Formats: sequence, C-alpha cells, structure tokens
Amino acid sequence: VTGTPLNVVALIERKKRGEPLTQSELEQLSGGYLRGEVPDYQMAAWLMAVCWRGMTDEETLAFTRALVASGTELSWDHLDRPAVDKHSTGGVGDKTSLVLVPLMAAAGLPFVKMSGRGLGHTGGTLDKLESIAGFSVNLSLAELRQQVGRIGCALVGQSPELVPADGVLYALRDVTGTVNALPLIAASIMSKKLAGGASVIVLDVKYGSGAFLPEPEEARRLAAAMVAIGTGAGRRVRAVLSPMEQPLGRAVGNALEVREVIETLHGAGPADLWDLTLELGSQLLVMSGEAADAGSARERLSRLRDSGAAAAKLEELIAAQGGDPGVVADADRLPAAPIVTTVEAPGAGWVSRLDARTIGEAALELGAGRRVKTDALDLSVGIRLLARMGDRVEAGQPLAELHSSSADRAAQAEGAVRSAYAFSADRPPASTPGYEVVGPAQGT
Amino acid sequence: VTGTPLNVVALIERKKRGEPLTQSELEQLSGGYLRGEVPDYQMAAWLMAVCWRGMTDEETLAFTRALVASGTELSWDHLDRPAVDKHSTGGVGDKTSLVLVPLMAAAGLPFVKMSGRGLGHTGGTLDKLESIAGFSVNLSLAELRQQVGRIGCALVGQSPELVPADGVLYALRDVTGTVNALPLIAASIMSKKLAGGASVIVLDVKYGSGAFLPEPEEARRLAAAMVAIGTGAGRRVRAVLSPMEQPLGRAVGNALEVREVIETLHGAGPADLWDLTLELGSQLLVMSGEAADAGSARERLSRLRDSGAAAAKLEELIAAQGGDPGVVADADRLPAAPIVTTVEAPGAGWVSRLDARTIGEAALELGAGRRVKTDALDLSVGIRLLARMGDRVEAGQPLAELHSSSADRAAQAEGAVRSAYAFSADRPPASTPGYEVVGPAQGT
Repeated sequence: VTGTPLNVVALIERKKRGEPLTQSELEQLSGGYLRGEVPDYQMAAWLMAVCWRGMTDEETLAFTRALVASGTELSWDHLDRPAVDKHSTGGVGDKTSLVLVPLMAAAGLPFVKMSGRGLGHTGGTLDKLESIAGFSVNLSLAELRQQVGRIGCALVGQSPELVPADGVLYALRDVTGTVNALPLIAASIMSKKLAGGASVIVLDVKYGSGAFLPEPEEARRLAAAMVAIGTGAGRRVRAVLSPMEQPLGRAVGNALEVREVIETLHGAGPADLWDLTLELGSQLLVMSGEAADAGSARERLSRLRDSGAAAAKLEELIAAQGGDPGVVADADRLPAAPIVTTVEAPGAGWVSRLDARTIGEAALELGAGRRVKTDALDLSVGIRLLARMGDRVEAGQPLAELHSSSADRAAQAEGAVRSAYAFSADRPPASTPGYEVVGPAQGT
Repeated sequence: VTGTPLNVVALIERKKRGEPLTQSELEQLSGGYLRGEVPDYQMAAWLMAVCWRGMTDEETLAFTRALVASGTELSWDHLDRPAVDKHSTGGVGDKTSLVLVPLMAAAGLPFVKMSGRGLGHTGGTLDKLESIAGFSVNLSLAELRQQVGRIGCALVGQSPELVPADGVLYALRDVTGTVNALPLIAASIMSKKLAGGASVIVLDVKYGSGAFLPEPEEARRLAAAMVAIGTGAGRRVRAVLSPMEQPLGRAVGNALEVREVIETLHGAGPADLWDLTLELGSQLLVMSGEAADAGSARERLSRLRDSGAAAAKLEELIAAQGGDPGVVADADRLPAAPIVTTVEAPGAGWVSRLDARTIGEAALELGAGRRVKTDALDLSVGIRLLARMGDRVEAGQPLAELHSSSADRAAQAEGAVRSAYAFSADRPPASTPGYEVVGPAQGT
C-alpha cells in the first residue's frame, strides 16, 4: 500500500468502460475492502461492472493473486512428493473427495482437501464427514501441517486464515446479485487452491441439470479460466468436465454417501463414482510425474483399492481427526434413519431420465440439506437410487429408498422423487458421455 | 407498500439480465432506499446494472414517477394560466434562466424555477443570484405559493420536500461511478420538473466542449428520453439542442453574469444569449397556447423586453426575495473585483476557437466556482470575453478581461484563458449552428 489515496470511483469507472485494472489496483480494492477502507457500496458497483465487462485472463489472474495476498499461503515444498489438490463445482451425490483423498494419500501424494458445507440441492463434504461419530473438520494450520507430515492427508474446513478477502467478497456478492460472473467464480475457487499450496491440481467441473452451470459450454469456459489462472500462477492444472444429469452413484444424503464411499473403497461401489475417482486420480498421478500415462495410473490406483491400502488410509485419516475408524469395517456404525420406504415404478419401461436437481431437492425435503445457511441437518436421512438411467424396471419395482425421520417428510419427498424419473418404452441409447479434459492452452 | 418483503436480490438479478422492473418495484426500491430499508450496496449494484442494461422508455417513466412519489408534488392548476418550467443541462456563462423567468412572467405565465449551485467548470443559478445583496434563494413551499400568486414567478433552490429520493440516489451515484447513465440522468432531471408542477416544460440540452454531454448524438438521446418522460406524464414538453462550444454571452462569473442579464433585459446584451432566451421562451409560449407560432411568440417577447416590462418584473422578483432591486437600474451596485487585467492577442487573426470548458476552468482558477462542494466562492470575480468566435483581432488587442481578487490568481488564470483561444489567418466560415427542437415522438 502506497501513500497515495486510492481513487475508488476512478477504478469503478475504468471497469465500467471495460478497461482492465492492474494487480496493484486489485490488491488495493480487495485488501481495502477487507480492512473496511473501501465501502461495500463501492465494491458492489465494481462487482456489477465486472459482471458487465468481464475480466481479461491476465486481470483474472491478477485478481486471484490479490485475493491470495489477503491471507496466509501454505507451502508443502518441504515434503518429498508434490502435494495435490482437487476442486469440484459440486453436484448431487458427489462424494468423490472422500474416495480420492485416501486413495491418493495411499499412492504417496500429500493431499490436503479443504471443503465446504452443503447449500440448496447440493451437498457438502464437511456435512458428510460429520456423519462419522467424533470426526472433527476443524484443524489449526499447525495441526494440519503435523497431520499431513504424519499420514499424508487431511479433510478439513476452509481455514479462515486463507483468502479472508474471498469470504467477505462472497458475502457481498450473495446479496448484490453478483454471484454469477465467470471471472469472479474462477478467481474465488482458484484463490483457495493457490493459497492451499498444492503444486498439482485437478478441477472437476460439472455440467447438467444438477450442476451449478448446467450448460456444457459454460462449464468449459469456467474450466478454461481456472486452468489459465492455475497455470499462470505456476501450478500444474487440468480440468475434467463431467456430467451431472443424474446423481453421482446411488446414495444422496450424508451418512448414506459415507456408506457408499466405504463400499467403493472396498470395491463394491457404483461404477460411475469409481470411474470419476480414477479419472481425477489418474490426472493427478500423471501431472505429478508419478505415472507415464492415464492407463498405468488407473491400474495403480485400482491396485491400491484392491489391496485395501486406500480403505486403510481412510481409517487412518478418520482416527487422526478424532472420528470412529470402525465405520470403515462396519458401516452400520453410521447413523441410520428410523423409517425406510420405497418409491415404486408406475409401470414397466426403461429409465430415460433421473433428474439430479430434483433428487437433490427431494433430499432437501427429507432434511439432508439446507435451504438457508442456518438450517440444521439430519445426517441420517437421504435417498438411495435403486434404478438409474438406462435400467429396465417392471411395474411396482422399487425405484428408490427414502430414508426418513418421519412418515410426513417421506410423503413430501416421494412426489419429488417420482417426478425425477421418466421412462421410455424402448431401450434408450447408451449415453455415457466421456470426460473432456481441459489442459493449459498451447504456448503457456 | 404491501406486506410482502421485497426480494431486492431478485430485482437486481432481473435488471442484470436486462429485464425491466415495474413501477411498483421501482417505488419499493427507491422508497425503500430513502427509508433505509434497502442498503446502499444493493442500490449500488442495481445502479450499475442500469448503467449496463439501460431502461426501456416505459421503465424510465415508471422510475421517474417512483422518484416523484418519494416527496411532495406541487400543483399550479388553481392559477388561470399554465405554469411553465425550464431546465438546462448546464454550460459556461449560461445565465439564461435569469433572463427567461422575468420575461415569461411578464408575459403572464407562472414560472417557478428551482435551480442548483455550480460545481466544476459550470456555474449555478443560485450562486449568481446571491451576488445580488440580500437575495434569498430559500423559500418555504408556503412562501413560494404566496409569491407566485402575487408576482407570478420565483427563483429558488431545489426544495428538500420535492423528490427526496433523487438527492440520496445522486449522492450514491456520485461515489459509485454511476452518474453517467442516460435513463438515470433523464429520470433525475424530469422527476424534479414533474414534482415542480409545471404543465409546460422546455429543456435546454447543450452539446459541445463546455457541456455535460459534448457529443450532439448523446445530447439528442438525452433530449428524446426526457421529452418521452414528460409527455408520458401528461406534460407538454420540448427540448432545444443548443451549442456550448464557446461560453454563452461574454460574461463568466457570478456578478458579471448578473450584470449581463440586466444588460440583456435592457436590450444591450450579447446576441447569442438573447437569441437562446427567445428560442426557449417562444417554445413555452407556443406550447402554452399563448402564441400561434414561434415568429409571433418571438415578437411578443421582444416587445416585453423593449417596453421594460421584463426588467420591471426582475426588479419585482428581486424585491420579493429580499434582494436589492436597485441593481436592475444600476448594475454598479453589484460586487466588483478589485483587480481588472486584460489578456492580449498574441498576433493578428480571426478567433477560430474559444473553448468553453477551458474558460470555465479559468473562472474556477479565479475563484468564481467550486472544485468540491465545500469550496467558498468569490462572487465578484470572473472573465469578460471581449473577442469571441469569428471576431477579427489585431496583435495586442485585448481578448478578455480578468476580474480578480489578487494579481497571483489573475496570473494563474491568464494562461488558461490564452489557451482557450485559437486563431486562423483566414476568416473562418460563419458557424452559427441552428437550434434543433426535439418534440414528442409521433403517435404519443
């Protein structure tokens, strides 16, 4: 910060005309806002001008760096292997981090995953973890460093010491209609990845009905923007575009999803969840120089699952963070809902649609998620999808199990679950969209 | 206001997507802001979204009505002639209101002119009036009604009881880079005209170097937007586009301008000032149904000047508002600067340019205006332009008189005045751009 007073109105007006700001100006803006020197009405006007005019790639990188500079930056350079990290834009039934973190740690790559809580129709990793009795998601930075040195991984909440400017800016965006702006979203996500200190990062960018960005083209643009930021900041970064038309796996709801994670590490999980885990994990192994190609990376990760090494690492992780590691051998120790009912198929046919967003909202009805930040959760409730897209069902066959706290809530959710399904008389064409990988642009 | 809580974020997001808001929503926004229920950061985001997306004509009218609804609305329907009003977008040396108000009142048309103070390179009518000893620009609404009933006119400051939402919104626009947005400018101006209660309104929209909007095309768009609002609200409205390349008249500075007003009402003023007064006044007479056409209107107004009726009305007005009416017969009673120096022509030639903005800034140097709102004015100082565009000058001939409080300030202003002039060896083509009149669109 120089002695020159910041002319915030001039910065707003430049952005309003579509001119990029410099990193120093962006640091003065975001830092000034954090310190209370730039008032919220000026930040709000600037944020809307960014929604209007966008940011150049260079400006987005500069803004991300300005956010990072507002707090502590972690470094794992003292470890002998490159630290890895992962981000997902979120979806329904997305419990991939819980599988991927112990798997990569079993492969020897340090992995500190900082996660958030669920809001609306998407769940949050921290809530899922808290369905394990005793598990603590709050570690100090000292505890975090100590644990990673000892067992190679951690699953924790976002540290308030990292990127504090992002938190206050997000709160302002939330009340000023400025959440949806690609450079702001990309900078917010990547600032936390950069401050987290990993040198190898994979981004899971989802599209489809249950995703934050339903349109593949928008997801692709966000992926490219985030890869450009990470690459510009000297990290190895790739993004994987993955579909979120139907929920990932069969389980939606906190304890139910942890149970599915355990099943997956035991080799008995749903194919789509394990395949996405392999895709993200193999990108990390290849970028880290630990595997020559995706094929050998996938083989190695499969062996770490089959040998029990990954499940053992999850036990170790749970124990390190105060949780009951016994859940890995006996998932019945997880909380269970008192009432389990089923939703039945209205007739015979093929499942042609299983809308992720509608299932997410049905889980919200059951109490598995939050409509507003202050809502309390019931970690035991949720939905298990017995029939998924492309499955053949007969009339009366159970489509889904509802795990509920009361018959009333089950009745409320049943209609939503029913409406998430559509059927066709003919077998629908197999639609398993492949992953699309977005790497650094040529020449960068 | 209904019992439904206002979802301000949803309104901001609709505007962000380019959708118009309804009058009720706009009233809830502006009224809610005035009452402190809508926070300034949400208004700031909405204002920037308006800069981005603009407003439809219908929405601009609805917003103007919402602003008007925030305060008192005056009515002059009890008078037997239609009340008239005028607004100018402002310029250098623009003292037209001081000539037009007594002239129209002498013609029998009630005229309440609410004016502002000068800021930056443009002057303000209230400051000019205060160079008349004792003149008060602050009348209560009751005093205003009483004076208009008695003498048919008033020259006062903007009443705080009219359009209070405009004042708080303008203050927010000023610090959020959202001043320049055509619908916001048009609504701000027109809300005050509508609340002022006149049924016939003429708008003087200036373009050129000394104007708020230098480009004629932008001035034309603002004029059309304001005419559409006034017409939509049931008033008779026309706009006159007038040039502001060089200052209007010869005098720039408060007492100097009042002196020029008095000269003009005595038939001895500069031709451009009198011609613009006639143009605006004849539009008012024709719209009021008091004259069949512009030609007969101009003749009638010239007779009211030549008969001394307009000057007598100015004396009456000054006396009514506590000022010294003797200045009309003896302008030497106005304050005079202690030092008068001249700026001389560097060589022989024709004046090809006399930049209004530069002259306005030179007057600011002398102390005739304010850089920031809290600056004190010296009402006696200013500039008299002896040579104007198209004039022939010889080397050493005085171009302008500087009326100064000190030799230092005169020296500072001299360079600016000199730089405002440019000369050509050949006689420049006579450039007297005609006025362009913007009336209601066809079919409205």
